[in-house]
Amino acid sequence: MPRVVKHPDARRNELLDCAQALFFERGFERTTISDIIEKASVSKGGFYHHFSSKEEMLEALAARLAEEAVAKVQDVLQDPGLGALDRLNRFLARARQMKVEDAPKLRATFDIIFRPENYVLYHRLNAAVIAVMVPVLEGIIAQGMQEGVFSVPNARSAAEIVLQLGSSTHDIVASAIEASGTAEAAATADALDERLRFQGIAVDRILGLPDGSIAYPNPGSREP
Amino acid sequence: MPRVVKHPDARRNELLDCAQALFFERGFERTTISDIIEKASVSKGGFYHHFSSKEEMLEALAARLAEEAVAKVQDVLQDPGLGALDRLNRFLARARQMKVEDAPKLRATFDIIFRPENYVLYHRLNAAVIAVMVPVLEGIIAQGMQEGVFSVPNARSAAEIVLQLGSSTHDIVASAIEASGTAEAAATADALDERLRFQGIAVDRILGLPDGSIAYPNPGSREP
Repeated sequence: MPRVVKHPDARRNELLDCAQALFFERGFERTTISDIIEKASVSKGGFYHHFSSKEEMLEALAARLAEEAVAKVQDVLQDPGLGALDRLNRFLARARQMKVEDAPKLRATFDIIFRPENYVLYHRLNAAVIAVMVPVLEGIIAQGMQEGVFSVPNARSAAEIVLQLGSSTHDIVASAIEASGTAEAAATADALDERLRFQGIAVDRILGLPDGSIAYPNPGSREP
Repeated sequence: MPRVVKHPDARRNELLDCAQALFFERGFERTTISDIIEKASVSKGGFYHHFSSKEEMLEALAARLAEEAVAKVQDVLQDPGLGALDRLNRFLARARQMKVEDAPKLRATFDIIFRPENYVLYHRLNAAVIAVMVPVLEGIIAQGMQEGVFSVPNARSAAEIVLQLGSSTHDIVASAIEASGTAEAAATADALDERLRFQGIAVDRILGLPDGSIAYPNPGSREP
């Protein structure tokens, strides 16, 4: 049988496909690099040519999932009939819907980044996802500025600040995950809801919008 | 000569005094635990009773410096004649003045936390300093709400969000430090100034103040 030579990117994507399937099914921790190698039918050398660790795969996976999510909402991002605020709210609603649908898989894969010892990994993943999201949000904000609805000195900085603000919930999300299933679960979930609600208002204000312009999720519906 | 038995907190503070003097003088990296032990005239066991590493000392030192800074501005924090916005601006002006005066020492001690490999340490120090600052800012915001000048749903959450927003400049500060002395120095310093300026406006808006209410430092004058 002739050996099939694949394009390096195709091989890398296949490895990510296999890792994603395993992470979603058994969780990040219970998946080993050997499992991924076996599922992808590559050699150990073939694996390490593309990734140096499972953590690096997780970072690449986070970026790929963010890119896929953006690709799935191109209808909302491109629709010429939408004003900027409507576009932003529809974009957020679709993103939330995807997160809720995939919540168990995403948790199995990404909950580990909220552990104190994984803070560097959290930061790396977060930076990778923000890099994908900045131009998307920048485009919406720039439209909102042209429409005179959003008011910021600079669309790109505004996008960066808003996305960084989102990542500042790390510690309170981490507490909520840690409290899950304990007597403190309800109280920490409430604290997280209150914080996210205010953070939504903070985003309205940063963008120069009236409070409540951006539609927030219902309490308890948000997946960390 | 009778052995002097000191209160554990006094000994801990002495160790921090010695570490601080050495970090300020030679920098964090060029100071060893042996240097600190020698300067403080304690045994190795005595040192490790209080601190498990130089990094843990740095975290304790950051918290102590924040507490000392707050103690030094009690006149501003307690003055019954000051409105909340005046109080906040005077507080920030004094904090900046202290930072500028101590800039070389603070840099020698804390610049290492902006290296990518020290991100966990950055987060720990930041959390320790924010813990000291939250009640201070919360008090000012609560006064501003009573005066009807600040408008937020909750003073404590507002304080937390504003302080977290400050910490989100990590990556751009890190870039500015890395570029220091290179051809990109001016450009990255400008990017940092622009970001900080917008971040100041974001804080105005989060607190429900008109843009420009909080007095920002002049470009280039801010110490990271």
